[in-house]
Parts: sequence; C-alpha cells; structure tokens
Amino acid sequence: MRHYWTDKPPSARRVGVGETAAEYGEFRLIERISRLFAGTDRVLLGQGDDAAVLAVPDGRVVACTDMLVEGNHFRTDWSSGADVGHKAAAANLADVAAMGARATGLMVALSLTPETDVEWVVELAEGIASESDSTGAAVIGGDTTRGSQLTVAVTALGDLEGRDPVTRRGARVGDVLAYAGRLGWSSAGLAVLHRGFRSPGALVGAYRRPQPPYAAGPVAAAMGATAMIDVSDGLLSDVGHLAESSNVSIDIDASALTISDAMARAAEALGADPLQWVLAGGEDHALVATFPADVILPADWTPIGNVAEGRGVTVDGHRWQGGSGWDHFDRSGG
Amino acid sequence: MRHYWTDKPPSARRVGVGETAAEYGEFRLIERISRLFAGTDRVLLGQGDDAAVLAVPDGRVVACTDMLVEGNHFRTDWSSGADVGHKAAAANLADVAAMGARATGLMVALSLTPETDVEWVVELAEGIASESDSTGAAVIGGDTTRGSQLTVAVTALGDLEGRDPVTRRGARVGDVLAYAGRLGWSSAGLAVLHRGFRSPGALVGAYRRPQPPYAAGPVAAAMGATAMIDVSDGLLSDVGHLAESSNVSIDIDASALTISDAMARAAEALGADPLQWVLAGGEDHALVATFPADVILPADWTPIGNVAEGRGVTVDGHRWQGGSGWDHFDRSGG
Repeated sequence: MRHYWTDKPPSARRVGVGETAAEYGEFRLIERISRLFAGTDRVLLGQGDDAAVLAVPDGRVVACTDMLVEGNHFRTDWSSGADVGHKAAAANLADVAAMGARATGLMVALSLTPETDVEWVVELAEGIASESDSTGAAVIGGDTTRGSQLTVAVTALGDLEGRDPVTRRGARVGDVLAYAGRLGWSSAGLAVLHRGFRSPGALVGAYRRPQPPYAAGPVAAAMGATAMIDVSDGLLSDVGHLAESSNVSIDIDASALTISDAMARAAEALGADPLQWVLAGGEDHALVATFPADVILPADWTPIGNVAEGRGVTVDGHRWQGGSGWDHFDRSGG
Repeated sequence: MRHYWTDKPPSARRVGVGETAAEYGEFRLIERISRLFAGTDRVLLGQGDDAAVLAVPDGRVVACTDMLVEGNHFRTDWSSGADVGHKAAAANLADVAAMGARATGLMVALSLTPETDVEWVVELAEGIASESDSTGAAVIGGDTTRGSQLTVAVTALGDLEGRDPVTRRGARVGDVLAYAGRLGWSSAGLAVLHRGFRSPGALVGAYRRPQPPYAAGPVAAAMGATAMIDVSDGLLSDVGHLAESSNVSIDIDASALTISDAMARAAEALGADPLQWVLAGGEDHALVATFPADVILPADWTPIGNVAEGRGVTVDGHRWQGGSGWDHFDRSGG
C-alpha cells in the first residue's frame, strides 16, 4: 500500500478550522486514523502491510465500491466529517446487504487537499468506523493521497454465509414487491437544506446519516427473495432496474407507501409533493425485493406492489408523471 | 452500485480531443467500458448488480486499494489513458503479489470531469483490462462519478491458494535479501520526462507502464520467503519498512544492483547518479523479499543484501546519503 503526499500543493479551499492535513503530516494522520479501526475475528491481517487478509469461510466474497466527491455528493457546510463517513460506509454496506450478504470488511481510499482540516478527517474515519462496527464489519485497509478535491472511495466486502446471492434479475410474474427501511426521508431532508432550513431534524438527520436496514437483506435472502436492490437512486428508478433485469413489469400501490408526519409537514411548508420524495428520492438505501406470493414476509418488510408480465414500472397502473429519480446528465444510453 | 452524474458541471480543463464525458453521457460510457471487462471462472457474478460475487476457494481473500489523482500521480500529457489504466492496475496487482497471492478481481472507481475526453476514459479502461488480464484477474465492478479532478481508485482482491500470506514482519537475522523485477527504471524515465525528453524509450516506457514481476510473489511464498514488500516508494524506503516491521537491520550490497545501459546513458546525459534511481526510485513495483540463507533462490530473484540484528537500512555498511524514496510532505510522524 502506498501513501502519497507529495510536495506540490494544489489550490483548494480550507474545509474547516484547526490544523490542516499539510501541517499535520501524512504519517501522523494515518497513524491516528488507523487507531480508530478495530479488527474482528474475520480480519486475519489488518492494515499496515501491502494488503489485508480477510477470512471468507463461505468461499465466495461479495464486493462493491462507491466514490463520493465533495460538492457532488456532500457539502462540508451541510454534513460533518462523521456524517460523510457514515454515509460513505452506508452506501456500500447497503449494496452488500442488497445481495443478501453480511458485510465483513471495508477499505477506504481518501484524497485530501492540503487545506483539509485534520479534525474533519478524523471525524470522517470515526463515522466510517462507527457505521461499519454497527454491521459487524471491520475497516481492513486504505490509502490516503492528495488532490484538489476531497474524495472518498469505499469498497465493501461481504459473506453470503452459504446462501445464494439475490440479484436483480430473479423477479417472476406473480411475485410481491416489498421494501424495508425508509423511502423519501433523505430526499426530503435535502430539500429542507436546499431551502436554507435545518429542521425537521428527523429528515435532515436522515439525509446526513441514512439508516439502511442492513439485517433485512440476509433475512430476505433466507426467506426466498427472488430479486433485490437497494434504493440509492429512487424507488421508481431502482425498481425499474429490477423490472428491466428480470424482464417483467412492476406496479406499485401508492396507498401502501407511508408518508411520515415530518415529511407531510415539510412538504406543506415547502410546497412540495411528499409522494414525489417517496417515489423518486434516493440515498435512504432502503431495500426493495420481490418475494413469491406465498411467502409470509418478515416483520420489517412491507408489501407495496406486484410483478406482472410486460415492461417498466407503474404506480397504481399508470406511468408516474414526476421524475423517476436522480437527474443524470444524459440518460440517452440508459 | 450507484452511478452519479449530476447536472452541476464543476470547472475543469479538457484533457483531450473528441467527445467529452458530459456530451457522451454516463450510461453510454458505462455500457461501453463494461464491454471491455471479460469474466473468468472465478467471477460468479460480474458487473451490473449491487455487488459482484467472486469465488475464493481458499477461504481467505487478500485485499488492497490505491488511489491515483491527476497532477499528483499522473499527467495526461506524459501518459495516455491506457498508460494510466495500466499503472493503476499494476500498483494494486503488485500489492497482491507482495503478499504471495494471485490476483483474481479488480474494482475501479472513477471520478471524471465533464470535460474528460471519452476516448481517454475508454483507453484507461482498456489499460486496466489488459494489465488485469495479464495476471488472470477480472474487473468485477466499479463506480463512475463526476468531480473536478480525474481520480482513479482501484481495489484488488487475491487468493493465497493455501499458502500463508508473506507479511513485512517475518525477516529474521541471517536471512538473505533478494529482489525480482526492475529498480530505478520508472524513476529514471520520470527524470527524463521532467527534462522535456522522450527517450530512452525503455525508461520512459517503464515510467508509463511498470512491469511488476507478479508471478514472482507466489513463487517466493512457496519457496519460503519470510517477509516481502513491493517497491512502490523506493528500495531503501520499502526495505526500511521490512526492517522496521521485522525489528532487524538490513544491509544492501550496492555491487549486486544492476545499472542498465539505458540508465547509465540517461544518468550521464542528465548529470544524475543512476544508483540514486535504483536505491530511491519507486513505482517499478519490483518485489523485494527475505529468504532463509539456505534457500536456493528462484531464477528471477537476485540476492542483494543480508539481514542482521539492529535497526535501519544501510548500503555497503553505511547510511545512504541521498534521499531514501519519495519526498513525503512531512515525515515527522513516520
């Protein structure tokens, strides 16, 4: 593993108060961060060598990676270092859960600017460690380097514990669509922040620190889920991926979706449609899965739709007229 | 897996000619890149789902990650997209080899600017695919996002095939130090480029596309190597890590180090000391390892020193007076 920290400072703004990464020095920073990451019995060799070694008794490893960039995925005036760490870990841990697997290891590559506040980075590492600990996964390695933009790349590894992976392509006609977790909370929180508000705290908190239902993934796999995905782009968009990959159509029953009181109040204050947040808001990392109709759903799963022949996703039998999720730059090839 | 490509273009310079990432669109780009990545029999589930699934019959997975940032680790006027892809893959594949493992899977997270030339990105992916193919590893997943600085984060996974991992801390008094691969070539090539030259081609090529001796890692492990590391920061610096982790001293015999003709000529032309490149130049990703004195070294390993009691690294019994490797910003905590 190589830790670059060369001597040419790119221009970048200061992200906080206190000592900067350049003043503090790379090795001290790595040493300080490393102490935050505890091992587990899966970690056969942790940080500090060329690579880490993780036990995967199943004989298959689940792996995914996700990159967050300042200004695009987070703003340091809206989220603390700990919030960003939490969120970066959660995005990857949820991807592992969406395969029906349990996360066991995380790796973190960081690009810092010379002006990055050291305490912000330490908080980021604490956020990653804390969210990762909550799922039983360990941070097993990483890399720090310097750039002109704060960038966090997280890789998560997971174990299927003998189960088959639940992909996006197994939904069958007649299956029930269900979800676990939250829908629209993060998106509502972001809308609140965009308007310059800081409350309701539940929504802003959901944007800052999503709470994916990690345990619901392996449970769904064990109960016979036929397809699963985590809602990172928005319910319609991600259910659309399930439908397309499985070559089926999926209809969502709007009356089965919950609008929380906080969301209803925020929507009224902002003149927004809360259903739009629930249907098209991403980043809560809810899990959505299809199950055979005769499966009794686990307690944390709520049925919200049905799988039929055809293509695409409908709401109460009709195409949704709002947006379907994140505005991508160009969807022409999607 | 989430592919962000939101609609706020950060300012960034154009890196090449032709269609830009913003014009081309994220989904088309991902689709085009994905086609370059072939599977292997280890890939149970490849790209296009929330996570990939890789077979690790050994029951342990080796994992490392490395981030390359434009302007810090590469310049688009000195290296093509394919060169950068090759180099990003090589840095990680060499880390896996340095554990005595065989690489099986790579994941790639990319941050592109809206102005990034699409052909450059396709070449980058081709470089990664080609270098990864050469070791038998497959690209199993990734993420693309947008930022203001081209950034490539690669994660490599590998298999120990039943062997113990070779760490940095097993060197014992009386062991022989040996290396496989090249030393100083990349550094000499970089010095040539810094002076505005493009030849000797062998050195510039070594800077652009290092050729780590991947197979030598598992061979060394099988032959009983007691400690191993890849030379990414420089021979003295990385042997220093071995010595420190193993709590021994290591003496290097300068007469055992090879100065290639190209390097001697370049050194003369630039007024440089070629031994400085060999001792302190990184990025060739040679492997350096310690072996018990009675081991007959494999053909591609050259003995260059000895392990004794004490601390630190010496050259012919003395502290080297030149630099020991990369100039880090601050070594006070190292």
